[in-house]
Amino acid sequence: LRKVKGRKPRWAVRASEMSKKTFNPIRAIVDTMKVEPNPNKPMISLSLGDPTVFGNLPTDDEVTQAVKEALDSGNYNGYAPSVGYQSCRQVVAAYYSCPEAPLEAQDVILTSGCSQAIELALAVLANPGQNILVPRPGFSLYKTLALSMGIEVKFYNLLPEKAWEIDLKHLESLVDEKTACLIVNNPSNPCGSVFSKSHLQKILAVASRQCVPILADEIYGDMVFAECKYEPIATLSTNVPILSCGGLAKRWLVPGWRMGWILVNDRRDIFGKEIRDGLVSLSQRILGPCTIVQGALEHIIHRTPPEFYHNTLSFLKSNADLCYAALSAVSGLQPIQPSGAMYLMVSEALMCHFQSIAVCSVCAGSCCPCFEYPNFFRVVLTVPEELMVEACSRIQEFCERHYQGSEGAQDLECDK
Amino acid sequence: LRKVKGRKPRWAVRASEMSKKTFNPIRAIVDTMKVEPNPNKPMISLSLGDPTVFGNLPTDDEVTQAVKEALDSGNYNGYAPSVGYQSCRQVVAAYYSCPEAPLEAQDVILTSGCSQAIELALAVLANPGQNILVPRPGFSLYKTLALSMGIEVKFYNLLPEKAWEIDLKHLESLVDEKTACLIVNNPSNPCGSVFSKSHLQKILAVASRQCVPILADEIYGDMVFAECKYEPIATLSTNVPILSCGGLAKRWLVPGWRMGWILVNDRRDIFGKEIRDGLVSLSQRILGPCTIVQGALEHIIHRTPPEFYHNTLSFLKSNADLCYAALSAVSGLQPIQPSGAMYLMVSEALMCHFQSIAVCSVCAGSCCPCFEYPNFFRVVLTVPEELMVEACSRIQEFCERHYQGSEGAQDLECDK
Ligand SMILES: Cc1ncc(COP(=O)(O)O)c(C=O)c1O
Ligand SMILES: Cc1ncc(COP(=O)(O)O)c(C=O)c1O
Repeated sequence: LRKVKGRKPRWAVRASEMSKKTFNPIRAIVDTMKVEPNPNKPMISLSLGDPTVFGNLPTDDEVTQAVKEALDSGNYNGYAPSVGYQSCRQVVAAYYSCPEAPLEAQDVILTSGCSQAIELALAVLANPGQNILVPRPGFSLYKTLALSMGIEVKFYNLLPEKAWEIDLKHLESLVDEKTACLIVNNPSNPCGSVFSKSHLQKILAVASRQCVPILADEIYGDMVFAECKYEPIATLSTNVPILSCGGLAKRWLVPGWRMGWILVNDRRDIFGKEIRDGLVSLSQRILGPCTIVQGALEHIIHRTPPEFYHNTLSFLKSNADLCYAALSAVSGLQPIQPSGAMYLMVSEALMCHFQSIAVCSVCAGSCCPCFEYPNFFRVVLTVPEELMVEACSRIQEFCERHYQGSEGAQDLECDK
Repeated sequence: LRKVKGRKPRWAVRASEMSKKTFNPIRAIVDTMKVEPNPNKPMISLSLGDPTVFGNLPTDDEVTQAVKEALDSGNYNGYAPSVGYQSCRQVVAAYYSCPEAPLEAQDVILTSGCSQAIELALAVLANPGQNILVPRPGFSLYKTLALSMGIEVKFYNLLPEKAWEIDLKHLESLVDEKTACLIVNNPSNPCGSVFSKSHLQKILAVASRQCVPILADEIYGDMVFAECKYEPIATLSTNVPILSCGGLAKRWLVPGWRMGWILVNDRRDIFGKEIRDGLVSLSQRILGPCTIVQGALEHIIHRTPPEFYHNTLSFLKSNADLCYAALSAVSGLQPIQPSGAMYLMVSEALMCHFQSIAVCSVCAGSCCPCFEYPNFFRVVLTVPEELMVEACSRIQEFCERHYQGSEGAQDLECDK
């Protein structure tokens, strides 16, 4: 007992600092949410960014068929390389490659969901003590991951009055010597906004001037309504190096499958070998995503019928229009028309207890830190139409009562 | 440009310290291994702990059928709680629960492979600057993960002459104030050893005396040959708190599926709420394992026929006997009889260039840092019998030539 001489050991097992610094506000709500339905007034959860919860948006048969074929082949049960099978990386590269931003297999890293893509991208770009620039309102995972790694978060503002464009002056003012990357989320959760080509070019100009690489969260890529065009930011970059994060979760409606990817766009060789090697090393900590989903990727990407994507988007657009119209009519509320993704933001500037609304459309606002954005709440547009109608009318009813001084009625309960 | 006044930005994107500290020697070999077969003398890889590479050990039909049913149900496409579906945690808890170490759903956390189970367990137990006790020879991931997190690794010796039991004196001598946990891997990779009940009790006595919690890597749990009995260490613990890591990879022969788990055994409430909460928080960084595999868990665990497990083990045992007999006859080599898992260790004390053997049985020894154990190499017992025979005869041939002074012949190539 050489080293412990004089020490009388006692049990004192403490959780690590990192685990204490790790807090995911959305999951904290969702994972502890009571799901028992209330028989009198079933909860309508508008707060969860999971398109599958109501069963009205199943994935395409080709997508499940693809996994069955991968299973039956027997070829996808073993370990894949930790960055994914070469052939699957090739499929993703070919699908997202374009002349302005060419991609090869080696530019693709498959990950366990877009969440792990973001984790690896942050882990390779930033050291503890550095900072990252994050949109406000924005997806909470950026902050969750950054703080758990000792990385500081600086929020740049999105402008609701300009269709949620970035306040570029504010953004640029936040850059300092310790800025490791700029996160751009387009199309946006929670805003449902889609940046124009010219706005993206202005964002790139800031990044280029300040020499800050971009982490592009494009998990809602291609999910834009008809009148709008989605431009992957990498296709517009001439020099700024970009790690684009995406995956199957949203467009193919299978978030539980945990299939994501990083696309390395680095035309000027600024990331160089170092960042690529770093991503490979980091991927080797827990190895890649489930191999049977990897084995299904080619089929999923090539054989999902265009109608599937189209149907999802027209459903979302119709729900967006319905919700927009209904909530526009409610005094005290001001919805903002979305152009893509699966969300719509509503300003509730006059209210302060919105989180107690029975429809549980709340996952924002002063009392919920999910989007760092008080006085707005996010509506998820994936719920069935009849529930959307019912939810809007409950919101209206609540608001009317609320403005008469009532603090909410007995039958109203929050989802927390 | 307030904050950057006076600063002329230049591109200088460097990979993070963490990514540079992350190195997984096995993956570094495997992921870059050229797999093109040599038509003259096809490589026989004995170095990769993947039971599926030769196709001779398929998983059971019930296992793939289970995933198909989960797919068809349509119920497993959405997000699960980040620690896994409650019902699936319940299934795992019930399966591994026993009177001496009862488990409930809340004691189970589902993870993306046993690798992520180990990552989360280390991340919650240890802070940067602390140390962990790790077996030598041992699975390289412990060191990979620890160093990437700034945790120091102290190796305790296993004793080949005592069937790879732990050198308990040496182990205890390594404990100090900064020791955050003791990793016990049983059955062992790379040794194929299985600890007796009394040896496990002695390990527990050290942990108890020194008040060090245990991370039990039991991914090869239940994979022991007929004459042997496997005891989960938690069933023998009266006070030492234990995080047991396991998964589907080895016993069900589907390592690519990335399904693992942590079982929290804490009868004296030493981990308490803090460690449990920490594990939940950490699981929320990238969310859990693939939901369709989760959805299949109940069926997999309840309906895989006993013959399946039995057949795998008798195949491994027969290959072990074959390999042991063949290599025992080679002068300069000394194989050590395994009792479980999928490996056999061979002492090659007289050699120093074993890594150049064509059979590529090497993933150990002085030149390969995988197990931190010079002068031994590991043979993977999952290869088809005829290849095992061929491999052993190539090893014999090589050794005979080698001892005649030859440095290896033209037709011999390493897998690196
Ligand atoms: C903006 C954004 N990025 C990333 C993710 C995470 O995606 P995944 O489920 O593939 O990890 C989400 C999920 O809601 C999201 O909204
Ligand atoms: C001892 C040991 N622990 C853990 C693992 C990792 O298991 P998984 O593939 O489930 O991450 C392995 C894989 O070879 C192993 O040998």
